[in-house]
Amino acid sequence: MHCFYVDSFLREVVVLCEEESAHCARALRLGVGDAVLLSDGAGGLAEGVLVGVGKRGVEVRVTRRSHYARRVGQQTVLAVAPTKNADRMEWLLEKVTEVGCGAVVPLGCERGVRQRLNGERLHRVAVSALKQSQGAYLPKIYPMMRFEDFLTNFDTVCGVGMPGGGASYLRVVAHCAEGERSDLAHLLGDAGPRPLAVLIGPEGDFSDGELAMARAHGFLPVSIGSARLRTETAALAAVVLAGIRR
Amino acid sequence: MHCFYVDSFLREVVVLCEEESAHCARALRLGVGDAVLLSDGAGGLAEGVLVGVGKRGVEVRVTRRSHYARRVGQQTVLAVAPTKNADRMEWLLEKVTEVGCGAVVPLGCERGVRQRLNGERLHRVAVSALKQSQGAYLPKIYPMMRFEDFLTNFDTVCGVGMPGGGASYLRVVAHCAEGERSDLAHLLGDAGPRPLAVLIGPEGDFSDGELAMARAHGFLPVSIGSARLRTETAALAAVVLAGIRR
Repeated sequence: MHCFYVDSFLREVVVLCEEESAHCARALRLGVGDAVLLSDGAGGLAEGVLVGVGKRGVEVRVTRRSHYARRVGQQTVLAVAPTKNADRMEWLLEKVTEVGCGAVVPLGCERGVRQRLNGERLHRVAVSALKQSQGAYLPKIYPMMRFEDFLTNFDTVCGVGMPGGGASYLRVVAHCAEGERSDLAHLLGDAGPRPLAVLIGPEGDFSDGELAMARAHGFLPVSIGSARLRTETAALAAVVLAGIRR
Repeated sequence: MHCFYVDSFLREVVVLCEEESAHCARALRLGVGDAVLLSDGAGGLAEGVLVGVGKRGVEVRVTRRSHYARRVGQQTVLAVAPTKNADRMEWLLEKVTEVGCGAVVPLGCERGVRQRLNGERLHRVAVSALKQSQGAYLPKIYPMMRFEDFLTNFDTVCGVGMPGGGASYLRVVAHCAEGERSDLAHLLGDAGPRPLAVLIGPEGDFSDGELAMARAHGFLPVSIGSARLRTETAALAAVVLAGIRR
């Protein structure tokens, strides 16, 4: 069954937005009587039936609503320096949406190569992945944030919409520099059901100053396995380890 | 330091192949005296210095050789039905090479949509990822194999080049069908340092017949987390869980 993204399905009959209506009626050629799924990206999934395909948009009568509690993996906060290549960032958004992630914060870092990001485009990629995987939670995509601003505002970022708020998070900063680092898989194994907040640096890694700042804000230095991973690979590996654990 | 792929570096002076020579001299503009890394994709990494850039190819004098034992994640056998979209398969090869994987076997399945694969192209993607991540092990990419042929020949596939051979493998088949399934993260947690062999089905999943056949060959039915994952996402998640564990 095809799934569509809606802001809310509290009404009995929901009108899909322009983009979703076009996808539904023109691309997929669904018509009156066809059954569909709706996701509000905030824990709600609904079943419905098409009752109208007109100029106002596709109308869906909601027949059944469900609400899902956030699993621990759907609370993961991923703060990641955008990759040089925009495709790799879009790919990352697709994958973390499928696996489950609470928030993605593009980080402006000292050695970062990209200072701007098409947030609209990332949102569209995430919505598309949400529909494809029939997921209930869409990661909140933040506008680009300076590294120090993220650290200062961490409790606000995690406090909004994340059960438990910032205090309950296992906070880690992944980096390649010499020095004592814990193994992320070990830490998660010992952490029990605590959600993860992870910082992933740019291709040139975090600076020493950034690492010190992260540590001062309670982020533990970690390694993610023993291989050299690209930014987006490290980010996805962390989200997988946090989201799919025993 | 830039890394290049060579068949072997047993000689004192190694000549890079045509493609690697072009990458080294023309694209990266390295010259005599520059230091480089070499990987043979079979556990060997070497340091060297460029001593010649001529028509025969780039010549590297090897100054130091290291051999790395395979980590358990580098023994993972991933048998996966190719995705409809070739890009997604190439992306998967890049990522599993970075994270570490022993072998990738494209599976011909009943509900598979793709019966052919450009193995040459996949190999090039993997080599590029190997160099980028300065890895020591290149996954062995098998030609497309029918599902039942893979099961019948599993011990041969795993016996060649994989320490321990097929007998030591934790064998699992991931699927979405109803029925009793173990959680892959749990299984791996209990398995200790055993390598993983995992079967990942096509978009339309394995057929009941294929599942029964896999079970008869000692493959345990598993789920990978609780979200609906695309073929390539499920495959990478399994490789991450097997490769990056406590």
